[in-house]
Amino acid sequence: MSIVDLEFIKLISFSSPSKIILIILDGFGGLSNPETGKTELETANTPNLDKLATSGTCGLIDPVGPGITPGSGPGHLALFGYDPVRFNIGRGVLEALGIDFDLQPGDVAARGNFCSVDKAGLVTDRRAGRISTEECTKLCRLLDGAMLDNVRVLLSPVKEHRFIAVFRGEGLVPDVNDSDPQQLDIAPKPINALTPEANMMADVANQFANKAKTILAEQHPANMLLLRGFSQRPHFPTMNEVYKLKPAVIASYPMYRGLAKLVGMEVLKTGSSIEDELATLKENYTNYDFFFVHVKGTDAAGEDGDFDRKVRIIEQVDNSLPNLTSLQPDVIVVTGDHSTPALLKSHSWHPVPVLLQSKWCRRDEVKKFSEPACIYGGLGRFPAAQIMSLAMANALKLTKFGA
Amino acid sequence: MSIVDLEFIKLISFSSPSKIILIILDGFGGLSNPETGKTELETANTPNLDKLATSGTCGLIDPVGPGITPGSGPGHLALFGYDPVRFNIGRGVLEALGIDFDLQPGDVAARGNFCSVDKAGLVTDRRAGRISTEECTKLCRLLDGAMLDNVRVLLSPVKEHRFIAVFRGEGLVPDVNDSDPQQLDIAPKPINALTPEANMMADVANQFANKAKTILAEQHPANMLLLRGFSQRPHFPTMNEVYKLKPAVIASYPMYRGLAKLVGMEVLKTGSSIEDELATLKENYTNYDFFFVHVKGTDAAGEDGDFDRKVRIIEQVDNSLPNLTSLQPDVIVVTGDHSTPALLKSHSWHPVPVLLQSKWCRRDEVKKFSEPACIYGGLGRFPAAQIMSLAMANALKLTKFGA
Repeated sequence: MSIVDLEFIKLISFSSPSKIILIILDGFGGLSNPETGKTELETANTPNLDKLATSGTCGLIDPVGPGITPGSGPGHLALFGYDPVRFNIGRGVLEALGIDFDLQPGDVAARGNFCSVDKAGLVTDRRAGRISTEECTKLCRLLDGAMLDNVRVLLSPVKEHRFIAVFRGEGLVPDVNDSDPQQLDIAPKPINALTPEANMMADVANQFANKAKTILAEQHPANMLLLRGFSQRPHFPTMNEVYKLKPAVIASYPMYRGLAKLVGMEVLKTGSSIEDELATLKENYTNYDFFFVHVKGTDAAGEDGDFDRKVRIIEQVDNSLPNLTSLQPDVIVVTGDHSTPALLKSHSWHPVPVLLQSKWCRRDEVKKFSEPACIYGGLGRFPAAQIMSLAMANALKLTKFGA
Repeated sequence: MSIVDLEFIKLISFSSPSKIILIILDGFGGLSNPETGKTELETANTPNLDKLATSGTCGLIDPVGPGITPGSGPGHLALFGYDPVRFNIGRGVLEALGIDFDLQPGDVAARGNFCSVDKAGLVTDRRAGRISTEECTKLCRLLDGAMLDNVRVLLSPVKEHRFIAVFRGEGLVPDVNDSDPQQLDIAPKPINALTPEANMMADVANQFANKAKTILAEQHPANMLLLRGFSQRPHFPTMNEVYKLKPAVIASYPMYRGLAKLVGMEVLKTGSSIEDELATLKENYTNYDFFFVHVKGTDAAGEDGDFDRKVRIIEQVDNSLPNLTSLQPDVIVVTGDHSTPALLKSHSWHPVPVLLQSKWCRRDEVKKFSEPACIYGGLGRFPAAQIMSLAMANALKLTKFGA
């Protein structure tokens, strides 16, 4: 198959005053309610989205590939045009992004769990009975700042039993295995280097685990910790390098701001509602030519299995949409990073509806924005990583390829 | 773009009790009868398939790629999720699989034709007037078991003028050219090594061809033989390694059992009708979590140009379907390995209708299983090698990719 990648786009992209707005409704795609036969999006009353669908063109996207359920990292990177398998982000780094931790070049981040071990040191609860975030914060403070062989270990609480451990020092290479055995009744695994360059990382991580064992000994249920997903902040080409865009992110949740920062977007301060986000968009509209607006509520409602709440959040977005369309951007894209059907209560592999509206898009027959209607859309079904080149083309920011 | 391959699926697949049934109607896709405007599948009365299409989701698959007509090997491997261009099977091996010949590691198999040559040794008929299978069997016996430089040559008849020659010995490498010139009035080609490692193979093969020339001298019209497709049994990752499945094949024809064995399926003994095959499925239902059920008749009817017979066989399958659906498998996939339109009397490049039914598939508007209706299916048009990841996802046997 033809591979249209970032290097290729870089050769044909150019800067221009036209503006692109990408609205990502997290976990947007759904499944039919068995009682009504309609998905969340079909159920929602969405006159403004339907108007955009009518004047625009629709389709369905696969974030990673057919059958593959993406996490938030791959789901978003694909929409920014980055092959989500090639541009992989480690678990530790993603968690750090999620709490707005300012990772430095060279830092190695690991995701941590406080856990329970018995007298023999075997894991009896991988989540230490889901201790409170307050308790987690207290335990992190006990361990934060340890100095081991010139490596500083920084601990930050995430939520309940979850935290991140950041190893800061010279020459750290993250190619080590997890200590988390992912099952009960065996001891945390020793951390081994998977390449010779990672020997120091493994050594420091083991020292840290041993130190934690001693310090946490009396803290049952959280009397030990497990580490996984050792990783460094990757160096991705920026959207400015690839697309010649001046991009900005408007997102109320830190993880999505973090993902956007990885591809060089500037972070705009905003509030927690879609109205706040669109107000931020309006205030900053003249300063950027690409905006990624993130809506978290759809995914959270889907994860909770709350079909009706997901419907309501879609309706809220629809209701706010005139604040966006009134800016008359050259290209509007509305889609999701993956599906989170309320029926499944989790991310899923189902393709995600996408809508692209611009002066230059080719009309199709879709008049209602929904999963079943998008099957018939003019964009067809395609990999999510191609939406950016479509948006760029519709913004007239790509030159002809070949004479 | 993103390449979702077996190595990737291996990382995210896990074992679970859910069950997948893949029914492959060989040469399933068709072309419209000029008198009625309807394809074989459209003409067939298929209430059970239509019911599955209504509750499931449909699409069209390209076994290798648009415009590419696949043989049985690539057609099936794609449906098992193996890139049919990368996972290639030599002609000799495929013929050996087709007669249930038990190839050993290191064996080199070649497809053979008995042919006619004139006094000057030039080929006058590449098929020796299509001698009978009995005659072929007799001639194979004349040559079978020859020992040449510590290499045993084993001959087995296939059908009419066709046979296989298996070279068994140490250090054989199959990188040699065919002796079959594929045209008349020139001599069989000498067999040359294409790499230095294949010198011995070339030498033994030439010795064998010379010996055959002597032994067959008085057997006109079958007074010589031609060899092609020298190949060894490939080592493919098994479906258990890739998908963590316990897979079984139910097929009345040896070639399809052989193809399935190449990817690690267990062979279940069965009879020759679809009813026999579904009885075998029922008997073994608790012992496996993946079943590949093969129906040969559709392809044979297509090859014979017998439109009506192909219609009848599709109707037989439809009629037997309740024996399968009553088992309530988690995922049912119905499709073909390629099209064999009766109008063309041969395999063709046309995309193949596919139907996937599970509790978690997303509704589309297709209510009749047919080529034209599948154009509007929710699965869209996609490479056949992606159907397994979709089936795995719908069986909830794939974890999320990325956090």
